[in-house]
Amino acid sequence: MADLTDLDATAQADLVRSGEVSPSELVRAAVERAEATSDLNAIIHPRYQEAIDEAGGDLPDGPFRGVPFVLKDLDGMAAGLPLHMGTKALRDAGYVAPSDDTLAARFRAAGLVVIGKTNTPELGLVPSTEPESYGPTRNPWDTTRTPGGSSGGSAAAVAAGVVPMGHAGDGGGSIRIPAAFCGLVGLKPGRGRVTLGPDVGESWAGLVSRLAVTRSVRDTAALLDAVAGPDVGDPYWAPPPARPFRDEVGADPGSLRIGWTSQSPDEATTTDPEVAAATEAVARQLAELGHKVEEASPPALADPAASDHFLTCFGVWTARDLDQIGDLLGTPVTEDGVEPGTWAVAEMGRSITGAQYLAGVEGLHTHARRIVRWWDEWDLLLTPTVPELPPTLGQFAATPDNPLVGLIRSASIVSLTAPFNITGQPAISLPLGRSADGLPIGQQLVAAPAREDVLLRVAAQLEEAHPWAERRPPV
Amino acid sequence: MADLTDLDATAQADLVRSGEVSPSELVRAAVERAEATSDLNAIIHPRYQEAIDEAGGDLPDGPFRGVPFVLKDLDGMAAGLPLHMGTKALRDAGYVAPSDDTLAARFRAAGLVVIGKTNTPELGLVPSTEPESYGPTRNPWDTTRTPGGSSGGSAAAVAAGVVPMGHAGDGGGSIRIPAAFCGLVGLKPGRGRVTLGPDVGESWAGLVSRLAVTRSVRDTAALLDAVAGPDVGDPYWAPPPARPFRDEVGADPGSLRIGWTSQSPDEATTTDPEVAAATEAVARQLAELGHKVEEASPPALADPAASDHFLTCFGVWTARDLDQIGDLLGTPVTEDGVEPGTWAVAEMGRSITGAQYLAGVEGLHTHARRIVRWWDEWDLLLTPTVPELPPTLGQFAATPDNPLVGLIRSASIVSLTAPFNITGQPAISLPLGRSADGLPIGQQLVAAPAREDVLLRVAAQLEEAHPWAERRPPV
Repeated sequence: MADLTDLDATAQADLVRSGEVSPSELVRAAVERAEATSDLNAIIHPRYQEAIDEAGGDLPDGPFRGVPFVLKDLDGMAAGLPLHMGTKALRDAGYVAPSDDTLAARFRAAGLVVIGKTNTPELGLVPSTEPESYGPTRNPWDTTRTPGGSSGGSAAAVAAGVVPMGHAGDGGGSIRIPAAFCGLVGLKPGRGRVTLGPDVGESWAGLVSRLAVTRSVRDTAALLDAVAGPDVGDPYWAPPPARPFRDEVGADPGSLRIGWTSQSPDEATTTDPEVAAATEAVARQLAELGHKVEEASPPALADPAASDHFLTCFGVWTARDLDQIGDLLGTPVTEDGVEPGTWAVAEMGRSITGAQYLAGVEGLHTHARRIVRWWDEWDLLLTPTVPELPPTLGQFAATPDNPLVGLIRSASIVSLTAPFNITGQPAISLPLGRSADGLPIGQQLVAAPAREDVLLRVAAQLEEAHPWAERRPPV
Repeated sequence: MADLTDLDATAQADLVRSGEVSPSELVRAAVERAEATSDLNAIIHPRYQEAIDEAGGDLPDGPFRGVPFVLKDLDGMAAGLPLHMGTKALRDAGYVAPSDDTLAARFRAAGLVVIGKTNTPELGLVPSTEPESYGPTRNPWDTTRTPGGSSGGSAAAVAAGVVPMGHAGDGGGSIRIPAAFCGLVGLKPGRGRVTLGPDVGESWAGLVSRLAVTRSVRDTAALLDAVAGPDVGDPYWAPPPARPFRDEVGADPGSLRIGWTSQSPDEATTTDPEVAAATEAVARQLAELGHKVEEASPPALADPAASDHFLTCFGVWTARDLDQIGDLLGTPVTEDGVEPGTWAVAEMGRSITGAQYLAGVEGLHTHARRIVRWWDEWDLLLTPTVPELPPTLGQFAATPDNPLVGLIRSASIVSLTAPFNITGQPAISLPLGRSADGLPIGQQLVAAPAREDVLLRVAAQLEEAHPWAERRPPV
């Protein structure tokens, strides 16, 4: 059965549809692989027997009928399954979600079978998945390193061949960074593309988008078709696509104007030479494919004022998150319910007034406008997803004198991803590089607002020119 | 020349296009009428000579080339013109806007000629236009009564025949209420339909939409075509229409499911019998036109929790507004720079933390979902725009013991309009009634999110069945 887990979700679903393989066989293969790779600590809430039972019953007749899947234990809310968001407070209370959120329901309606929930950093605050509550998830390419975060558990499970794709969400790079560190495809959809309903209208003032990490561009496109679109009463809607996203895979993108940079806008950050070389190689490849490629990027990316606005808002979001967890638990979250860094951020946030928060959001909106203007002249921006290779584990924990070690360590890692959470543009990380030591290197493409179609066309073109499907981690 | 001012904007523009009338003639006629009706105090910042000069020069070749227009002095920002938002603080400083906002620039590009800026209540906080800074605007139908607000100056100018349409904005009913009180068409576009750029990403957490009050449905549709669509970097985008909005005027709406109520969800409010009778008459008319019409409305409208969330947010928005005005002036706004009610609301807002504000916004989002769900079963909701006839002037001023008189008085007036600012749905007020004393009565239609097309189709159908163009106020 080992071969099945090598297939992408579209191929697995095709086998089910043609009757060559049953959903039970797919799910059993995934469970076997999950058990064989349990040292990665990717899946923290397994439901293996339930998934096998589910696969043997009546599954919805969706495009991914019978394909095994994982939900991220941060915002992936599924009835009857734990929802701990990386916190000790929810873990110790044994909190279980009372209902599905709309995205989880759409995943189910697509025929996906959830075999478990995956590990995340606490509240998704840092881009490495090593919460105190559940311990570190390990990168299948090098188990001394992080798979990234916050969707690190899902990315490790997909990279390890447990499931062909896994739910992920991205408020500062949390889909793209783990995709980059684990050699996967990670699309952060544009703002409003995938609903956060029914309980959430928007998250982090619109910075959070949700979808998945996958192995193939076609899986990302088909999954987006399956789950995109507003829920009833959503406050914000993305303009709908002109045609299904899966039709973009293989469609001719024409000759696009593509700017690229290998450098982080964060002055304190120097891009790892292997990462920079990989970006240059992709730029050359794009030129060979007929695009107009130049070294160019939005000057506004370097504006340092955005960080202050972001930090103001980040504090308030975290304070509000703790309030909400307190509401779920029926008792306020105390200092020992969360990590020191989370508590410190929330305390900072509690001192911010509503009017100051609004000023912060307005600052982010102003910054966004200045960045997006660049796309008047360009179709795509190419950058490294992260300016460095996957860090070793253990760099994000608070020290006795500094609770904010993790956040400070994060700044350079998110420096090329977070700007596009602020703008709400769609952005994708593709596994288009490899270090001398065999570590994955991700490259990011960023399209104009709401132009996932352009991203997917070019992503598929690069995938064909530079196939990555055969690369497998050593685990 | 008096006849020219009786024409709607489309007819005026047609005369210019055919060469029968020049832009100068139109603008001179508007200025004459403005001067003859100056007792209304609708236009507080005239630029009559400049407008006449402008009309004699090269005007942009837009759909409304040469048609006279007014900007509302709340959020209508035009280079070189005052921007006082009804405040003494900005008035006393003689503040002048440094640049056009995008909407003002689009109005100009459409060929409209701004003859002045119109009066508004301070910061648009109440639905009557009687700021301490500029005094009351009078309703042309009865000068002892309010034209409504916050777009009361624009509505009075249009109703008085000065201009065929005038800029307006709506955060709780501020387009629809003055349209209702002055016998005009007032469309609040859906959220994200008309940009607030380039300086504003969103206003009042998405509750504010901008467009105009007009005399005809076709003018509203054509103006929306001229100005709709996102600006570069807007944080939120409405889904684009399937075809130009003007094509909806005269298009067959088919047989729609229309629910109606004549009652306010505010328990303390009883609808004026003349207003309720007008709603029933429109319901009958819609049934005669072939729609499926029943007495029905969203049960969630009556949920009282929404007011608490709204007030939390309202305080923060007002506190932030004063901070921004202080930034414009280079010195903080003090208690004597604004009205006592504004100061009291801002003080309340200053005590609200960022996390509390976010909880308020989330509460509004939850409330919105519960309301919008009703449109799963229905196409349109019909209600009175306001449950009462235009109030006499003088009911909104603070008293020595109660600065919040105006806000308390407002609650019933906005009770049928504000819910659709919370949901972000498009809603239109149409002049479909008249009291025994000859006062206008407005009726509101509310469509599903982003369905301005449906609203405009039915509005045009009602306009044809029940023409209002010949009605003119006594002034």
